[in-house]
Amino acid sequence: MRWRGDSHPVLNALGLIVMLFAVLMLFPLAVSWFVGDGATVAFDHAVLITLAAGLLMWLPTRGRKRDLHTRDGFLLVALTWIVMPVFGALPLLDFIPDLSVTDAYFEAVSGLTATGGTVLVGLEHLPVSINLWRTFMHWIGGMGVIVLVVAILPLLGIGGRQLMKVEVPTPMKEQSLTPRIAETAKGLWMTYCLLTVACALSLWIAGLDVWEAIIHTFSVVGLGGFSSKDASLGHFGNVSVDMIVIVFALLSGLNFATHYLALARRSLRPYLADPELPFYFATLALSIVVLTVYLMQFGAHPDFLSTLRYVAFHVVSISTSLGLATYDYTLWPMFAQIWVLFLGSFIACSGSAGGGIKMMRAMILYKQVFREIVRSLHPQAVHPVRIRRQPVSDDILHAVLGFSFMYMVTIVSLTLLLTATGLDIITAFSGVVACLNNTGPGLGALGPASNYQGLTDFQTWVLSFTMILGRLEIFTLLVVLTPVFWRR
Amino acid sequence: MRWRGDSHPVLNALGLIVMLFAVLMLFPLAVSWFVGDGATVAFDHAVLITLAAGLLMWLPTRGRKRDLHTRDGFLLVALTWIVMPVFGALPLLDFIPDLSVTDAYFEAVSGLTATGGTVLVGLEHLPVSINLWRTFMHWIGGMGVIVLVVAILPLLGIGGRQLMKVEVPTPMKEQSLTPRIAETAKGLWMTYCLLTVACALSLWIAGLDVWEAIIHTFSVVGLGGFSSKDASLGHFGNVSVDMIVIVFALLSGLNFATHYLALARRSLRPYLADPELPFYFATLALSIVVLTVYLMQFGAHPDFLSTLRYVAFHVVSISTSLGLATYDYTLWPMFAQIWVLFLGSFIACSGSAGGGIKMMRAMILYKQVFREIVRSLHPQAVHPVRIRRQPVSDDILHAVLGFSFMYMVTIVSLTLLLTATGLDIITAFSGVVACLNNTGPGLGALGPASNYQGLTDFQTWVLSFTMILGRLEIFTLLVVLTPVFWRR
Ligand SMILES: [K+]
Ligand SMILES: [K+]
Repeated sequence: MRWRGDSHPVLNALGLIVMLFAVLMLFPLAVSWFVGDGATVAFDHAVLITLAAGLLMWLPTRGRKRDLHTRDGFLLVALTWIVMPVFGALPLLDFIPDLSVTDAYFEAVSGLTATGGTVLVGLEHLPVSINLWRTFMHWIGGMGVIVLVVAILPLLGIGGRQLMKVEVPTPMKEQSLTPRIAETAKGLWMTYCLLTVACALSLWIAGLDVWEAIIHTFSVVGLGGFSSKDASLGHFGNVSVDMIVIVFALLSGLNFATHYLALARRSLRPYLADPELPFYFATLALSIVVLTVYLMQFGAHPDFLSTLRYVAFHVVSISTSLGLATYDYTLWPMFAQIWVLFLGSFIACSGSAGGGIKMMRAMILYKQVFREIVRSLHPQAVHPVRIRRQPVSDDILHAVLGFSFMYMVTIVSLTLLLTATGLDIITAFSGVVACLNNTGPGLGALGPASNYQGLTDFQTWVLSFTMILGRLEIFTLLVVLTPVFWRR
Repeated sequence: MRWRGDSHPVLNALGLIVMLFAVLMLFPLAVSWFVGDGATVAFDHAVLITLAAGLLMWLPTRGRKRDLHTRDGFLLVALTWIVMPVFGALPLLDFIPDLSVTDAYFEAVSGLTATGGTVLVGLEHLPVSINLWRTFMHWIGGMGVIVLVVAILPLLGIGGRQLMKVEVPTPMKEQSLTPRIAETAKGLWMTYCLLTVACALSLWIAGLDVWEAIIHTFSVVGLGGFSSKDASLGHFGNVSVDMIVIVFALLSGLNFATHYLALARRSLRPYLADPELPFYFATLALSIVVLTVYLMQFGAHPDFLSTLRYVAFHVVSISTSLGLATYDYTLWPMFAQIWVLFLGSFIACSGSAGGGIKMMRAMILYKQVFREIVRSLHPQAVHPVRIRRQPVSDDILHAVLGFSFMYMVTIVSLTLLLTATGLDIITAFSGVVACLNNTGPGLGALGPASNYQGLTDFQTWVLSFTMILGRLEIFTLLVVLTPVFWRR
């Protein structure tokens, strides 16, 4: 397969995606008009500009349509994630006075990558529609815009298999649920919608008003982490709300393919067959027990139950990469903070809305290490790495090992870059980890009680890039940035 | 190959090694007697106890001698590195009042693993022979006790190939220089001795007194880092000494097989053929340039030349894993500190006296990442990773990827463990990295101006373990600690 040197079909598809994005923006526009919160004009402008830009990309390239190849797929996905936040930032830029372009782009990237680190303060004074747009971006991005697009584009005659391959975050990409990829995408998307409705109803019943319930539902189900309150979920101090959020964050951290199969077959068996699920719950449970015992010794919270409540909430929220907070956990001893941040790098399952290395890769890595140990003792024996008795191919193994290595190299180099700009090491490291895992809050000056506002423009751009890098699991963006990609 | 459940041959070989160690201890004993520094009795005791212990292991197991298998090799190497520091600590424990067993063991591990982090203060008041013993342990350990043993044990009828395979730190273990492994070991060892003599003469000519020259030579050539001065090499403030140390640290950081071939063939061609060498020098040169420019902006040193002097010294000293210091670099901005610490994790070449991931592995990792990028664009094409045009086998690739992963997991988990005991994160992280890379000084409370004395007993034991783990490149120790190893 050769690079055609012809990117018109990519531009054409990007134009369609941008136009679709403009359509999605009609939702906060409608809400703004319905509630009368004064942000209608901002959304008017944003929708018009986005639509116009999409048309400008789509119209002139219409005649050059063809099926998308692997390279087209990489380019389209990378461009989508770089360009979409530009339009996502428009309503914020239009409505919020003194918001810089840098900060607006960061906020939109943080929204669409479902990271949830914010540069805004005084969230409770923002219009409902603006806060809704912030978490609606989480919701759109959490499941993957492309999955959404794949479910719709076939109607428009554009092949989606290449996109799906590039974007859907799973080390086991070869498995598809149904023979037709569009069916798969639709199935995942409907599962996602069902979960969304269930979460919104639960939060509303637990006492949040309708808009707060919807805003936070988008945040939770997309594992985003934006809130409409500066104090995040801690603002409400509502135990039922905390518990509902834990349950739905846990569900969103699982592979949506498993949810879909369970729903389609009306059976719990797919959950039993999910290879990641036992490790996911076991690691979380163990962490909650260990940290509760540890924090009890430090008297971080008044009693056992409140310790358990805050530990359980933050272990689940940070490690699934949701990132909502009910307490300033930077007040905990450093060990507990680091542990929770560290969990965030591998807990979320493949095919979930979460970020990081993913549980499946962590399992493969663990088994590979074990295999190396056995092989050093029995050099002749052949012990393939197996997941649920199925051997993992060498190609997948290489990809997983290569990814984990790049993941750590990325953390080290971006941390170095940020410390070179004068950031202290905890803030730099935790900021990079929180953005690369799409978690949101970090430690130090980026803890849940503070936010990303204090950074310089350069640092903000670095972290915007980091979030996109994390959302695209490093390689997709890296590939496009390589000279090899552009050769011939 | 089966585990015989019979560890007598291992015990027998260990007894021999311990007796050999007692013989090596005669050197500082002789020096102590010659100089009359009052430590003679301490060495008398130590030699006798060590000899007796060796005999007690060797005598009863004499009749059970057989060739050592892979598992025996692992066990012997692991036991050697755990047991030898016990005897190495004896003279220190005997002579220095109030030195705890924990600290004495740490000091001996730090000596034998050529790490060079110390728990002692007032080094200038210690007898010559004690300081000599400290760096002589570096020298013994730097080249690898086992290489030494392999060069001698064949005379005693014990097969060494298995040991060499287990201990010699190179990802390309299959290559041996000469058909006979004992020849190889002897060649490496003689090269090492030559370098030692050249370094000692140079330091003596540059103005150090005979004993200071010898003590620091052992430290430099073994890439250890102990000094006989609390202010390390900065005590002398001698530019020629600094430059000599840089040159010999650079030589010790190269693969000794290359030195050996160059000497044996009386040609510089082996250096040109060394695949690691260009990357080694290029990375170091680039780092020196970047950090000099960076530190000039901060005015860390009065002028360009002094900035260059201190940057060049510490870049070479820390990244080759020597660890001597001429300045308290924790006064530099954090970026420069972290950069230097980070270099230490991969600069030293395979087959050198240095620690860390090793340049060869770093090159393989880099090429593997590049290969993954190419493969994601051309899934059908076959692009093996090549070093100097030779394809790297999948087995080696797996081992390298597995090692790097374990290396990072080790850093993360031990850092977490140390923060859980109350250490601040910079100190914990840099201590683990400095010990795992066998560098010596870390950052924070473990910088070159302070030392490891302030740690609790538990933290000291953890770091002793870390140094051995690093010296044995993680897997050897890990394998022995696995239940699989002991099964059947
Ligand atoms: K998040
Ligand atoms: K060292």
